[in-house]
Amino acid sequence: MEERVFGDIEGVYEGQIFKNRFDLSFSKVHKPTQAGISGSQNEGADSIVISGGYEDDEDYGNIIIYTGHGGRKDGSTKQVVDQELVRGNMALALNVKTGLPVRVIRGSHKGSAFSPAEGYRYDGLYRVEDYWKEKGISGYNIWRYRLRKVSVSNKEESNVLQEEESGYKKTKRIETTVQRIIRDTAISRKVKKLYNFKCQVCNSTIETSSGLYAEAAHIKPLGVPHNGPDSIDNLLCLCPNHHVMFDFGGFSILEDFSLIGIDGNLTINKNHNLNSEFIKYHFDHFYDEKNRF
Amino acid sequence: MEERVFGDIEGVYEGQIFKNRFDLSFSKVHKPTQAGISGSQNEGADSIVISGGYEDDEDYGNIIIYTGHGGRKDGSTKQVVDQELVRGNMALALNVKTGLPVRVIRGSHKGSAFSPAEGYRYDGLYRVEDYWKEKGISGYNIWRYRLRKVSVSNKEESNVLQEEESGYKKTKRIETTVQRIIRDTAISRKVKKLYNFKCQVCNSTIETSSGLYAEAAHIKPLGVPHNGPDSIDNLLCLCPNHHVMFDFGGFSILEDFSLIGIDGNLTINKNHNLNSEFIKYHFDHFYDEKNRF
Repeated sequence: MEERVFGDIEGVYEGQIFKNRFDLSFSKVHKPTQAGISGSQNEGADSIVISGGYEDDEDYGNIIIYTGHGGRKDGSTKQVVDQELVRGNMALALNVKTGLPVRVIRGSHKGSAFSPAEGYRYDGLYRVEDYWKEKGISGYNIWRYRLRKVSVSNKEESNVLQEEESGYKKTKRIETTVQRIIRDTAISRKVKKLYNFKCQVCNSTIETSSGLYAEAAHIKPLGVPHNGPDSIDNLLCLCPNHHVMFDFGGFSILEDFSLIGIDGNLTINKNHNLNSEFIKYHFDHFYDEKNRF
Repeated sequence: MEERVFGDIEGVYEGQIFKNRFDLSFSKVHKPTQAGISGSQNEGADSIVISGGYEDDEDYGNIIIYTGHGGRKDGSTKQVVDQELVRGNMALALNVKTGLPVRVIRGSHKGSAFSPAEGYRYDGLYRVEDYWKEKGISGYNIWRYRLRKVSVSNKEESNVLQEEESGYKKTKRIETTVQRIIRDTAISRKVKKLYNFKCQVCNSTIETSSGLYAEAAHIKPLGVPHNGPDSIDNLLCLCPNHHVMFDFGGFSILEDFSLIGIDGNLTINKNHNLNSEFIKYHFDHFYDEKNRF
């Protein structure tokens, strides 16, 4: 089997137009002639086509809120059952953890300002930043992904590029296999101090040569489309392990602050008021009973 | 007490020259009139002066390898005892974990191509990427820091900027409170697969809705001045907690693969040959017996 290529395809330039899905497949930019997601459950996704096939896609140019596949009747764009985190949907979710970029191809589509007038256009590399589920327009669960265009002007990213080249010789512009960007703001320092750097899930502290370490985790995430606030009622003090698990749906929190997915209860300081709306948001969007390992 | 200001000082532009340390102090760009590091052990460092006071400093322009303070006799630039990770040295180490930037001021100095002809020049914001210890030119331990200039052209960083502003209203250009950038390359995926995503320290796995999660940790770090290779004999499969602890000197590894700083032994797959030179490098540079918490 031919190796899956992540990153740009040699000889194909950004903005290049392909007449149809067969030309696109032949060019190796997006091999499947029907499926919107090209990828595997083991390696991740290497390309996607956005062409209005899913009623829930949202295209903002440099940011795309992409909808997973499945759950539709043949020939219809309407959901009729829940989508599941399998096949292409799982492949795209893996990219969030591996940082591998996907090639984005836009097909002509009346509804979008970013679509080409006709055919399919290769629009460069995007990173998959986040995955979650929600009720789609048709009322069934859909899996969603936030994609952000990889900027080539970024010098630091070009540094990474050099490091990466050894691993992916075939791809010229594979960049930024950045996985987890942990921010540390005034408000996050506050929540960490409140718990004295103890994880609210396991009550452990992480010791380093420069003192204790903890991370502040947003319950309802920052950024579109979640737009959770950077406020203390939306923050938890977690160890890195439980932060990763929380962000990637390894567990969630119920109304009574017991945990679901793992045993135990959230430790809560009496001066820390958590917003139950944000907790419900996390449970609805990031926890999936069907995906227990 | 006046609040410590991280980031740019209002009214002071990059490239601005100050006649002497008193003018510099008065401008609030760097308040101490003698010390090279301005900061506290609780909040981190807000500014540093690089002016050839330490024989071990290395200035590459956008990257600076800066040396901590202490260990010298009054009036001499020679080390006479080991430096310790306290006061300003600890402050700068905290910046690695908080991501807060430091203002960098260069003083005139014959030895450096980047120094101003005379006086002190404000050269903008740098991030502190890494801290470690090593034997300095004089044969005593010094603490070292890799600083990288914060690029203002970076669009993603400006996004972060907006989020940050609520926390630090006073600073116009505080950016990128990025803490931990975890990369995922072909070789790091290989080491994770070899251990089936089990941490080599605690043998635990992290479960998420999209499968198991682990991180590949470089023993001898990538990048200047360490220049460790991105090869499997320099990589460990760790859970996020032990990755943080390993990078920040919470524990290290001895020749017989027992751990120091925490109990236990490293689990090693029989097909995984670790390079003992890299392990010794980590112990020498990142583990400090004096800094146990």
